Amino acid sequence: MSEQIVIVGFGPVAARLIDELLPAVRDGHVSLTVVGEEAEAAYNRVLVADLGVGRTTADALALSDAAALAADGVDVRLGVRVRRVDRARQQVILTDGTTAHYERLVFATGSRPVIPNLTGINPDPASPVLPSGVTALRDLRDASVLRAAVDGGKRVVVLGGGVLGLETALAAAEEGATVTVVHNGPHPLGRNIDRGGGAVLAASLRRCGVRMAGNARSTGVEHNAPDGGFSALLLNDGSAIDGDLLVLSCGVRPRTELAEGCGLSVGAGILVDHRLRAHHEPHIFAIGDCAEVRCPDPACGECRTAKGPSGLVGPGWRQAEWLAEYLTMLATSTQEEADTLQELPQEQAGVIVLKARGMNMAVAGDNGAEPWDEDVLTAGAVNGRARLQIAQWADPEHGRYVKMTTRGGVLEGLVAVGMPRTAAELVGLFERGAELPADRSLLLRLDGPDQLAASGPADPAGTVCRCAGVSGAKIQGAVAEGCSTVAEVSKATRAGTGCGGCHEDIKGLIEKHFQAAPAA
Amino acid sequence: MSEQIVIVGFGPVAARLIDELLPAVRDGHVSLTVVGEEAEAAYNRVLVADLGVGRTTADALALSDAAALAADGVDVRLGVRVRRVDRARQQVILTDGTTAHYERLVFATGSRPVIPNLTGINPDPASPVLPSGVTALRDLRDASVLRAAVDGGKRVVVLGGGVLGLETALAAAEEGATVTVVHNGPHPLGRNIDRGGGAVLAASLRRCGVRMAGNARSTGVEHNAPDGGFSALLLNDGSAIDGDLLVLSCGVRPRTELAEGCGLSVGAGILVDHRLRAHHEPHIFAIGDCAEVRCPDPACGECRTAKGPSGLVGPGWRQAEWLAEYLTMLATSTQEEADTLQELPQEQAGVIVLKARGMNMAVAGDNGAEPWDEDVLTAGAVNGRARLQIAQWADPEHGRYVKMTTRGGVLEGLVAVGMPRTAAELVGLFERGAELPADRSLLLRLDGPDQLAASGPADPAGTVCRCAGVSGAKIQGAVAEGCSTVAEVSKATRAGTGCGGCHEDIKGLIEKHFQAAPAA
Repeated sequence: MSEQIVIVGFGPVAARLIDELLPAVRDGHVSLTVVGEEAEAAYNRVLVADLGVGRTTADALALSDAAALAADGVDVRLGVRVRRVDRARQQVILTDGTTAHYERLVFATGSRPVIPNLTGINPDPASPVLPSGVTALRDLRDASVLRAAVDGGKRVVVLGGGVLGLETALAAAEEGATVTVVHNGPHPLGRNIDRGGGAVLAASLRRCGVRMAGNARSTGVEHNAPDGGFSALLLNDGSAIDGDLLVLSCGVRPRTELAEGCGLSVGAGILVDHRLRAHHEPHIFAIGDCAEVRCPDPACGECRTAKGPSGLVGPGWRQAEWLAEYLTMLATSTQEEADTLQELPQEQAGVIVLKARGMNMAVAGDNGAEPWDEDVLTAGAVNGRARLQIAQWADPEHGRYVKMTTRGGVLEGLVAVGMPRTAAELVGLFERGAELPADRSLLLRLDGPDQLAASGPADPAGTVCRCAGVSGAKIQGAVAEGCSTVAEVSKATRAGTGCGGCHEDIKGLIEKHFQAAPAA
Repeated sequence: MSEQIVIVGFGPVAARLIDELLPAVRDGHVSLTVVGEEAEAAYNRVLVADLGVGRTTADALALSDAAALAADGVDVRLGVRVRRVDRARQQVILTDGTTAHYERLVFATGSRPVIPNLTGINPDPASPVLPSGVTALRDLRDASVLRAAVDGGKRVVVLGGGVLGLETALAAAEEGATVTVVHNGPHPLGRNIDRGGGAVLAASLRRCGVRMAGNARSTGVEHNAPDGGFSALLLNDGSAIDGDLLVLSCGVRPRTELAEGCGLSVGAGILVDHRLRAHHEPHIFAIGDCAEVRCPDPACGECRTAKGPSGLVGPGWRQAEWLAEYLTMLATSTQEEADTLQELPQEQAGVIVLKARGMNMAVAGDNGAEPWDEDVLTAGAVNGRARLQIAQWADPEHGRYVKMTTRGGVLEGLVAVGMPRTAAELVGLFERGAELPADRSLLLRLDGPDQLAASGPADPAGTVCRCAGVSGAKIQGAVAEGCSTVAEVSKATRAGTGCGGCHEDIKGLIEKHFQAAPAA
C-alpha cells in the first residue's frame, strides 16, 4: 500500500527531499503531495542577491521542475498555503479550501526575514507591509526590486552586517551601485568574527567600494522620495543615511506558526528529535530552516550544546537526504527496521566564507578569545583537557589577518581575511579536525608571493562545495568525464548549487584540467 | 709643549679614551693623568654578571694594563678619588692630598646603581651601606658575592626586570641557582617592550627556569638569616619572597656630584654640547654614562628629542674615540682647526638584545602602539608624513612573537621573541633604515623549520658587535688572518668586548670559516 506524505513548503530543502523520495514515488511505495506558497517551484534562494545584481538568471536558480514532478506522479500544489493542520484527522487544510490527507507530514516551511522595528515600517512579522523603496532579500520579487536599483545606478542602503548583507553590498557595489552597509557594533559580522578580523574586514570592504557605517542604531525610515518611497535611514544619533533603496538584511526567523497552531512544541524552530520527528508526534517531521534539533531527553549531551537552526542550506540538504531515506524505509518496511538507520550526526559549527573581487574571508567556530586573555584561554582546561591556544598574524596595512584558535593543536576557531589560500587550508583542517603544524607560521606561506602561481585547492580530497558536500576529487572526475562549465559540473555533482562561493574553485579545476590535457 | 689632560674615572669608556690618546702621549703632545677609585684598572663592567655566575674570569674582563700604561708615560693613580675640582686653578685635588693640574679635564665617572628605598636598606645614593646578603651588580666585589651564592646553589632574588636583571637571572638559573625576578608592571622590560612581547618574554623566562614575580611593589628586606643577613624581600601586598641573596638591578644613575660641586650644569648627567664640552667651560669634557649631550642652544632640534645617557657601553666608546681625536687636534694645532672635526652624530635608539640557552629577544625603538589603535597610529601622520603601520605575529604557545612598527615601510620599532633569525634581520633593517618587504610574513620564514640548517648572520656587511660597531666582514677578515677563538677576534677587532651578546655569532663565523676551509 502507498504511504501518503505531504510536504509543506517548496524551497531548496523541500526540493531535495522530493528528489530523494522520487524513486519510492515511482515504485508506488510513496504518494507525495507538496504545497508551495510561491507561484514558482523551488529555486536557489541563497543566490537571490546575485539575481538582484544581474549576475545570474531566474532560470539558472531553478532547483525543481513542477511539470516533470507532476509527470512522475507528485501532486504539486503551487500558489497556495496551508491554512491549518488537523492532527486528529491527519490532514492539512489549504487556503483554496482543498485538503490533503497525510500519514507523514513534513514541515519545510523555512524562514522569513526579520523586519526590524523602525518607525515607518510595519513590524508585524507574519505579514509585513514594506513601504516602497524598502525590501528584504528572500524571494524573486525582492531580487527584481534590487535589480532595478542596481541597474539604475541608485544608492543602496543595506541594513545589517551579516554575511548576506555584506555579499549583497559587495555585489551591488561591483555592479555600479553606491552602497552603504549600516551595522551595529564596531565591525560587521558581529560575534562571528573577532575585533582584529572585523577591523581588517571592514577596511577591506571599504577598499572594495562599500561604505561602512558601524556602531549605528537605526530608528526609522524617511519617505521623501518623489513616489513617497524610501529616501533615508534615520539613526539614533540624529543623523541620516540617504538612499534610494533600503535592503533589510537583519537575519531570518523560522516559520513556525502553522506548527504552533496545531500544538507542536516550538523553540527557536519546530522542535524535533534526532530522527527529525516532532516531539511526541510520530507522524510529523521538520527539516531545514524551520526545524530545531533538540530532543525531549533532558540528559542528551548533544542537545545541551546544540544551537538553533543554522540558516544555511547545507545542513538542510543533509537533513532532507537523511529523512528521504528514513521515510522510504518507513513506507517499505516496519518502524523497527527503519529505526536501525543511523541518526544524522550533529552538524559541525558552520564555516562562513565571503568572496568578492579583491576580497576573501573565512571564519568558523569560536573566535572570541584574544592571545593574552589568560582567563578565557584557560577557562575550559579542566580534567586534563588542554587549554586554548591562539596564533595570530595581523597586517592591517595589507588587509591581511589570520587567527587560529586551537585546543591540543586542533582548530576550534579560525579567522582569515585577505589570505585565500591560508583560509582554504584552515577551513579544511577545521572540518577534518586535523592537527596544525607546530610552526603555525607555515600556514601563512600559502599566500606568500611565491605561491601566487599555484591554483586550485591543495587537497583533492578536501571539500570544495560545502553546501552540497562535494569533494575536489568528485568534481575532477566530472570534469574528466566531459563537464566543461560550472553549470555542467553542478548538474552532474550538485557542487555549486548552494551559496555559489565555490564557483571560482570549480572554474579553477576545469581550467587546470584543460591546461593539463595537452601535456598529458 | 705638552698639553695636560686629566681623566677622572677609569672604567671601560676612560680606558678607550686612554688607548686612543696613547699615540699623542708617546709623541709628547699630551701629558695624561687618570684617576681611578677602584684598585683595578678598567675592566668590562658589562660582564660582571657573567663573572658572578662563573662564566668568565676577572683576567678576561680586563680592558687596561696599568703597568703598560705607566711604561708609556701615563700617570695612573688607582685606589684614590678626586675630592674636588678647582676650576679657577685648573687642578683636581685627590683624597690622598695630592693634586694634578689640567688644561683639559675629562669626566668619565660613569654611573652607580640605583639603591631602591626599602626598609632595611640605607638609601643614601652617595654611600649606600648594603646589608649582608644584598648586592648590586657593578664591580668585581659584587660579582664575587653573586658567585658565592650561585656556587652554593642558593636562592637568588633579583629586584628589577631590566635587561641586566634578566641576564643575571637567566645566567644564574642556568648555573644552578634558584632565581626569582621581582618587577613592576605586568611584564619585565617595562616600556621597552609591548604587552604581547612582554607576555611571551615572561613565559620564555619561566620556561628557562626563572621564576617571575610581576606587578610586585617591594617595600623592604627581612634580615632573618643566621648571620643577620638578607632572608626575604617584602612586598606591599603583605607577601614575601624568600631568598639567600638579593641582587638589586634597578638601573643606574650618572655620577655627577663632582661636576655639580665645581659648578657645572647638570641635568640627568653632566650637560655637554655636541663636542662633549661642559656648558660654558671649554676646559672640561664629559663622556660615557655620566654625560648628557644637550647643547645650550634652545633651538637645537637634535637636543629637543635627545634622551638622557643611554647606559650602554657602545655610545660611550664612540664618544671616547671622537674625543680622543678632538683632544689630540687641540693639543697639536689651534682651536679653529680642531673645530673642523665633524661633530659626533646623534646615537640611534638603542637595540636591546637578550640571549640565553633556549631564549632570544630583541627590541628597539617605539613599540607602544597596537595594530587597532587608530588614534595612536595616525597621531603623527601630518603634513604628508605616513601613518604608523603594524604587522604582528603572535604564537605564545610556542614562545614566539614579532611586532614590526613601520612608517612608510621603514621600522620605527621592533619586538622579536623566540625568533632569533627574524630578530637579527629586523635589527639590521632597523639600523640601516631599510624598507621591509611588502609581505611582512616573509620575515617569519627565517625562523621556519626549513631554515634551521643555515647559520651565521645573513649579511656580512651587517653589524655583529653593536657595542664596538664591528661588521661581520671585519670579523671574517680577522678569522681569515688566523684568529680562531672569540678572545683572539676580540683582541684583533674589539668585537665581543662589550656586552658579549655577539659571542655566539663570532663563534658561528669562526666555525663557518673552518668548515668551509677544506672544501676551498
